[in-house]
Amino acid sequence: MTSAWLLPEHIADVLPSEARRIEELRRSLLDAARSYGYELVMPPLLEYLESLLSGTGRELDLRTFKLVDQLSGRTMGVRADTTPQVARIDAHLLNRQGVTRLCYCGPVLHTRPSGLHATREPLQFGAEIYGHAGLEADLESQELALEALRAVGIGRLTLDMADARIVHGLLAGVTADAATLEEVYSCLAAKDAARLAEITADFPAASREGLAALIGLYGGPEVLDEAAQVLPARPGIQAALADLRWLVEHVGRAHPDVRLSVDLADLSGYAYYSGPRFAVYAEGWADSLVRGGRYDEVGAVFGRRRPAVGFSADLKELVRLARVDGTRAAIRAPWGEDAALRAAIRRLREQGETVVCVLPGHEHEIEEFACDRELVQAQGQWVVRAL
Amino acid sequence: MTSAWLLPEHIADVLPSEARRIEELRRSLLDAARSYGYELVMPPLLEYLESLLSGTGRELDLRTFKLVDQLSGRTMGVRADTTPQVARIDAHLLNRQGVTRLCYCGPVLHTRPSGLHATREPLQFGAEIYGHAGLEADLESQELALEALRAVGIGRLTLDMADARIVHGLLAGVTADAATLEEVYSCLAAKDAARLAEITADFPAASREGLAALIGLYGGPEVLDEAAQVLPARPGIQAALADLRWLVEHVGRAHPDVRLSVDLADLSGYAYYSGPRFAVYAEGWADSLVRGGRYDEVGAVFGRRRPAVGFSADLKELVRLARVDGTRAAIRAPWGEDAALRAAIRRLREQGETVVCVLPGHEHEIEEFACDRELVQAQGQWVVRAL
Repeated sequence: MTSAWLLPEHIADVLPSEARRIEELRRSLLDAARSYGYELVMPPLLEYLESLLSGTGRELDLRTFKLVDQLSGRTMGVRADTTPQVARIDAHLLNRQGVTRLCYCGPVLHTRPSGLHATREPLQFGAEIYGHAGLEADLESQELALEALRAVGIGRLTLDMADARIVHGLLAGVTADAATLEEVYSCLAAKDAARLAEITADFPAASREGLAALIGLYGGPEVLDEAAQVLPARPGIQAALADLRWLVEHVGRAHPDVRLSVDLADLSGYAYYSGPRFAVYAEGWADSLVRGGRYDEVGAVFGRRRPAVGFSADLKELVRLARVDGTRAAIRAPWGEDAALRAAIRRLREQGETVVCVLPGHEHEIEEFACDRELVQAQGQWVVRAL
Repeated sequence: MTSAWLLPEHIADVLPSEARRIEELRRSLLDAARSYGYELVMPPLLEYLESLLSGTGRELDLRTFKLVDQLSGRTMGVRADTTPQVARIDAHLLNRQGVTRLCYCGPVLHTRPSGLHATREPLQFGAEIYGHAGLEADLESQELALEALRAVGIGRLTLDMADARIVHGLLAGVTADAATLEEVYSCLAAKDAARLAEITADFPAASREGLAALIGLYGGPEVLDEAAQVLPARPGIQAALADLRWLVEHVGRAHPDVRLSVDLADLSGYAYYSGPRFAVYAEGWADSLVRGGRYDEVGAVFGRRRPAVGFSADLKELVRLARVDGTRAAIRAPWGEDAALRAAIRRLREQGETVVCVLPGHEHEIEEFACDRELVQAQGQWVVRAL
């Protein structure tokens, strides 16, 4: 019997074996971020809609559940993404001048799943650096993402890069309505050259040809050289290509085992990215495990324009690949009022052991919990014996 | 500047120093539950309203945020309490015959705060035992609650007991509408003898006098003897008193440092309790830190009546008293491309140290992160030096 008839679609319980693995994963990722100096924050699940969605675009709006606040009568949203909240915390609450590194791990809710098998309740982990406009912050963010995945045993990684400035640069000076632009983005994402040509037929030649070229600009890092030749020599575009070249060179040196790739038409994710972007893939896995990049504008709506770069990942996805072990062998103990027995149980638990007391009348139950030892009395002493 | 103007009332960000302490608390509590053999589960934040609120009473309904599911058009609720979800998991998904121990830790949302300073987003930790009707399960639940608090440095505890069967027993045979019964409960909670006498004036004498007596039945365990004399000799009531006496005796023996008290009029919390109940208080703290008890009927609505006993606590409350240390001294390191520097940083992080790289141009910022050492080059080697 499954819970399918009881729970909404794309919503599921996480049962013991998987829950324990997610918990291990959570601790490893938060510890990895801590080892880089990222401070933990916990933004609320609920906020007034204006502050939750400020400057984040239409896609996030559609994904956000709305509620009425009984205390104020105002509309609140349940967060569908944590990044804008963390930008708000950096801008308002901490209000520091220097570099600030923040991380978080908590659930988000989506009105609709992002794919056929996607959950509507991802457990989002992320890490962000505020206050440094240079590429060193982008590099640190990419490296932390790779290190965090390695820490949980996910190998054979591909780091795929793009830059939001390239499409922005190609669309500069183009007058088109929002719906047309949306369709340009979808065509690029779907690599649909034919439809893209139709939509952009009236665009200036440099834009039209540049967008058409983008569809083919994916592959190894050599794509960056090709792009420099093919794309127009506009400052934003050439700066983006130079930045990507710098990142490819530096990440490649530090992580020779990671495959590097470039897909200049990749625009997936939320609309707030403003510079280099990246996604991490694992071999044999179609969806990206991590998405991140630079989003210098998000804090601006909170009155403070700060450089920002970061990434996030869904632990419910990562757990399918992570090599973390949630099981731990336990010790079975009888129930009893004997003080020596109780002291023995307490000591074992203090040593980090799991001791399961068999409640009276349940001595002959098949053990659901994996006990490989038992606590027994031998010659007046309570001792642990293999089962 | 606070975030008050940005965030809804009774909703707050948790900033770094507190967030880290909550994370430490979370790990300690989950590890304490694990050492007793409780398996972790993660029920979803959202469920269809019927399954979320089945058999849980009006108070939980009023506290639950409602949403429309765009995929099905049905009404969903955001969980305001995790216990009924865990009962559902035990009843349906695991469907085991034997004793099952489950624990959880995650946010819940409330439409209204439970008090003047209460958050509407508690972080609920809880542990539950299913499948054992005997008092040994009640005892284990109380002991785990006490041990978990001790593990996070919360001492000077009072364990206060009550039993849902006593009020049920006194109201047996009384014909009164739901509103009247609600008011009886509020009078008992507020110890309002005058108003209680008015409402119960038409009740049968045994019920009226018993309810009136309840208001005075609080204090040390000797209250149980007094209650046995004063309250009617109905089977449910006398059984409840005998059970409480057994629990007082057993907990008292194992935890001589914990003050034991009884408050037979205590009915706070949700309506699903069906037997012995308990709350844990810390000295100088008005609100209870932990609430729990037996709720054998919750699983029944999911088609499986299983004995159940458990407790829950809000980590955002506990953190105010817990002696957990969220700070950790860090090492400051320069940013650089030198392979030896990068290797030194990686080694330190692998050893569990926090190493914060100072990004170029930020060398003279006042350190927000507590660095007590720095990584410097001396005679061609990268070494850690005190700051």
